[in-house]
Amino acid sequence: MRDFQFYTPTQVVFGRDSEQQTGQLVRQSGGTKALLLYGGGSVVRSGLLGRVSASLRDAGVACVELGGVVPNPRLSKVQEGIALCRREGVDFLVAVGGGSVIDSAKAIGCGLVYDGDVWDFFERKAIVTHSVPMGCVLTLAATGSEMSDSCVITNEENGKKRGLGSNLFRPRFAVMNPELTFTLPPYQTAAGCTDILSHTMERYFSGEEEVEPTDYIAEGVLRTVIEMAPRALKNPEDYDARAAILWAGSLSHNGLTGCGRGGNGRIGDWACHQLEHELSGMFDVTHGAGLAAVFGAWARYVLPCAPKRFARFARNVMCVKEPDDGKAALAGIEAFEAFLRFIGMPTNLRELGLTLTDAQLDELAWRCSFEGTRNIGSIRVLERADMREIYRLAQ
Amino acid sequence: MRDFQFYTPTQVVFGRDSEQQTGQLVRQSGGTKALLLYGGGSVVRSGLLGRVSASLRDAGVACVELGGVVPNPRLSKVQEGIALCRREGVDFLVAVGGGSVIDSAKAIGCGLVYDGDVWDFFERKAIVTHSVPMGCVLTLAATGSEMSDSCVITNEENGKKRGLGSNLFRPRFAVMNPELTFTLPPYQTAAGCTDILSHTMERYFSGEEEVEPTDYIAEGVLRTVIEMAPRALKNPEDYDARAAILWAGSLSHNGLTGCGRGGNGRIGDWACHQLEHELSGMFDVTHGAGLAAVFGAWARYVLPCAPKRFARFARNVMCVKEPDDGKAALAGIEAFEAFLRFIGMPTNLRELGLTLTDAQLDELAWRCSFEGTRNIGSIRVLERADMREIYRLAQ
Repeated sequence: MRDFQFYTPTQVVFGRDSEQQTGQLVRQSGGTKALLLYGGGSVVRSGLLGRVSASLRDAGVACVELGGVVPNPRLSKVQEGIALCRREGVDFLVAVGGGSVIDSAKAIGCGLVYDGDVWDFFERKAIVTHSVPMGCVLTLAATGSEMSDSCVITNEENGKKRGLGSNLFRPRFAVMNPELTFTLPPYQTAAGCTDILSHTMERYFSGEEEVEPTDYIAEGVLRTVIEMAPRALKNPEDYDARAAILWAGSLSHNGLTGCGRGGNGRIGDWACHQLEHELSGMFDVTHGAGLAAVFGAWARYVLPCAPKRFARFARNVMCVKEPDDGKAALAGIEAFEAFLRFIGMPTNLRELGLTLTDAQLDELAWRCSFEGTRNIGSIRVLERADMREIYRLAQ
Repeated sequence: MRDFQFYTPTQVVFGRDSEQQTGQLVRQSGGTKALLLYGGGSVVRSGLLGRVSASLRDAGVACVELGGVVPNPRLSKVQEGIALCRREGVDFLVAVGGGSVIDSAKAIGCGLVYDGDVWDFFERKAIVTHSVPMGCVLTLAATGSEMSDSCVITNEENGKKRGLGSNLFRPRFAVMNPELTFTLPPYQTAAGCTDILSHTMERYFSGEEEVEPTDYIAEGVLRTVIEMAPRALKNPEDYDARAAILWAGSLSHNGLTGCGRGGNGRIGDWACHQLEHELSGMFDVTHGAGLAAVFGAWARYVLPCAPKRFARFARNVMCVKEPDDGKAALAGIEAFEAFLRFIGMPTNLRELGLTLTDAQLDELAWRCSFEGTRNIGSIRVLERADMREIYRLAQ
């Protein structure tokens, strides 16, 4: 087992009606004036925003609202939020929504106490040393941003989607009511489940090395989502299935499934995420669907570097019985792709709705390699030519 | 899934030489003068206390030392610590040791800011509302106190051993270097592993209800310890086995394996722990060994109330293949007892070294029922007569 750090200070309040505790939680964290950040109108129409707003009022927390955060959240909205918070003297941020809203709040939080442009952090021109505290009311099981140190923002001016990690990004609290996810459309439910699976798999597939109890926990989280996703799709109001997926989403990305792999629990392969970031940066596809579309091509490409690990995945997660490691590994990848198709996810770029030209394949690899300046992956280190080949194989 | 809260703010620094970061961690938490609390001479002889002390000095943290904490830690030592800290103006507590030392530091922490006798908290005459912050350098995988909200102290004047829970008891940091556990004697290693298993099993056996991903995670933690304990006993310097056990110990009692069972992650059956507390309160037996000695009698006694749960344990943890639930359940209990014997733990009171008279059985049940005022257990609620019967069956 490698040295690691584990730090998950987020107070999780999980269950029915938990959003009504938001005001108290802000108050306990010292907030007196909050930005209430949200995305589309569904949060307003469902009455959730009203309930959260009432909870803040009842706790004596003043509040200013900002809506309009979109999936693959935009830098311009972050900048708008920073300007608004400065004008209004906001000292706490409350994100009501999924990962896009939470990530926008994280970016606003660090931008608010920085003199320069917040994009500097994402371009690694500045380091996050302070941040305005934030909490969240989660409406979507997917990114795990509610407990994670991650923040991903897209600069719409240049199409760049960039991630950033800091312990200061971990929310003070996460209010998680599974009922709030009942109304998610099937495609969003499935894409969210794929993202959850990917957060655990990126860590799980970081090498051949076995790390207990982390591997067993990761396998348990994966099996949970693989069993519960079809239940939630069949009956969107299956509380236990929605609850299991919601909690699995947090555990997949708070560091738990990375303990013992080095660093702060984020160490992993991450090639699928990085390959996907360029797809959604250029074509604005749904993140989870993009991950599903590149997984099979990536897995077959890197498989020769870690046949035992893929075989373990096949047996312990996908219930493959095959004794031969090589055959089991391939069968596991196929079984996982069959699962993805079953929940309505694409397993290649064509099914994702993209038909790419050679020039576009070149551009994706060029962007993913940060213009030829970085390699990605750890189970197999991928150079720009490898990235292009995986994009090609994913067609 | 039932509503729950999950709160694990402890910063875990895990790995080789991690004790050298203690001073920085105290400093980051705002400590300027620390009590360095420890148990026996092994911490001194090994040089660990010196290294931690040097780390504090290097970080500019003043320090006063107090040794002599014993297993089943005593109230008198806690009171001694409180008096010392008051005299010296201590503002941070550093426990160097296992659960006894950490629990003593927790009790000192709340007693230090309370006007009355610290035992009031354990008698439920007062509620913990403040505490002096503490961190720990762990030398023993067992109690999980390094991330838990629990504190257990024995009042040697009346032989009462009482537990107490508060989020204020969760350490600010936990330094965990598996190498520090290399020198543990086999009996302590095995008893620690039993305690770890029990912390997860108390939660796992709280009813028939299945809660994913918590059940899968619990099974993974249990399998880890069951696989790694024999490795650590065979080769005490097996780093990966020691590391796996150490980390499993924290995960077993920080609330993770209780998520979705209601409350704050501590909801469980806890009957074995409560039955054992009276044993070690009266006879000063090793906690983990006491747990091992009562498990089988308890399990067979409550089994008719939850055959499916015991069958699931048998299959998913003990690898029992039997298709019939009732037979599988019994086979699982037997397999677990065989494991306990294999690692050198007792499976009844006789093997624990106790031969009890009828009057002693009566007294144990009288004490365990808090003089006839409480029942224990949740998978099956146990009255005083049930407690006596389980003690009798455990002979």
